[in-house]
Amino acid sequence: MTLQKATNVHWHEGEVTREDRVELLGQKGATVWFTGLSGSGKSTVAVALEKALLERGKLAYRLDGDNIRLGINKNLGFTADDRKENIRRIGEVAKLFVDAGIIALTSFISPYRADRDMVRKLHDDSKMDFIEILADCPLAVAEQRDPKGLYKKARAGQIKNFTGIDDPYEAPEHAELVLRTDQLTLEQEVEQVLKLLEQRGILG
Amino acid sequence: MTLQKATNVHWHEGEVTREDRVELLGQKGATVWFTGLSGSGKSTVAVALEKALLERGKLAYRLDGDNIRLGINKNLGFTADDRKENIRRIGEVAKLFVDAGIIALTSFISPYRADRDMVRKLHDDSKMDFIEILADCPLAVAEQRDPKGLYKKARAGQIKNFTGIDDPYEAPEHAELVLRTDQLTLEQEVEQVLKLLEQRGILG
Repeated sequence: MTLQKATNVHWHEGEVTREDRVELLGQKGATVWFTGLSGSGKSTVAVALEKALLERGKLAYRLDGDNIRLGINKNLGFTADDRKENIRRIGEVAKLFVDAGIIALTSFISPYRADRDMVRKLHDDSKMDFIEILADCPLAVAEQRDPKGLYKKARAGQIKNFTGIDDPYEAPEHAELVLRTDQLTLEQEVEQVLKLLEQRGILG
Repeated sequence: MTLQKATNVHWHEGEVTREDRVELLGQKGATVWFTGLSGSGKSTVAVALEKALLERGKLAYRLDGDNIRLGINKNLGFTADDRKENIRRIGEVAKLFVDAGIIALTSFISPYRADRDMVRKLHDDSKMDFIEILADCPLAVAEQRDPKGLYKKARAGQIKNFTGIDDPYEAPEHAELVLRTDQLTLEQEVEQVLKLLEQRGILG
């Protein structure tokens, strides 16, 4: 990892700043927000990207259903208000990670444009990078993959308001990157994201 | 910072683990939870500790009223339920930082023992270090310092349910460390915390 040795760290008066952490870590914090249908390959690319970043000595951290829905958001359900609050809190947590100098990889369907745009604005207002990436594939492909068997249940009416079936997915209009996960290899997807992060100066 | 260079990183199958991040960062994540009266010196020592850690090439991040109450917890007020939820969310955010390999420094009055113990349990259940530090001084000293003028307002009845005045502060019974901030220099306080972190194997 391209980190400053302790002896090289510059001292400033006052509190440790975001810039100090950038210098310490040799990277800039950023939120990489993966959005897309269930089964679109969001988490797959986030997991592979995290490994690729580690290989380059960069610190990333994934926020996903496992550590969010069972933790900070465990008191939220699936009403409209709760879904919105779910995304808001994820956005606020991601911001804290960005401030700490870490590359936050979020992997949530996050189907509503307004919610994602709210999180983008939170980042913009704090001069933080928000990189929205659409994991894109036809619904039919996602439904065929059905890694958690959720489409089957939704089609059978056992799950209501399921994105793509009886609830809309609103694709981003200005995503920083669109990955056609049914046309690219995982390696190509990771390469494209890494290239984007490099161009944005995230990787130091 | 004592970080592995990219070429030294060991590869594992599957997802990046907490252990991978420990190896990358050359430190172990932990929550250092400062508790105490308003004006007890919690934030002062947290700020100084963060700088001392940076000087040693260690990545810490402070969670405090500024980035929490204005961010993830901005929809919480000061009712009993909201205060409890405030501490719960801070604990959950701290846990995410610990999982990411970072030393989370939290600086909140957090007056109720049950709430702090809940956060301790959250950490214990995930085999994460939770280090509770009481910033301790007589109420009279804190009130004399009154850095934000809050005691004055509380005494004048302009703020209700103010900890130490008309709401209790429940000191920890088994804090990992008690800092008598009216008897120690800031340097001594930081030294004591650093020693504790070293003993716990947090600093690699």
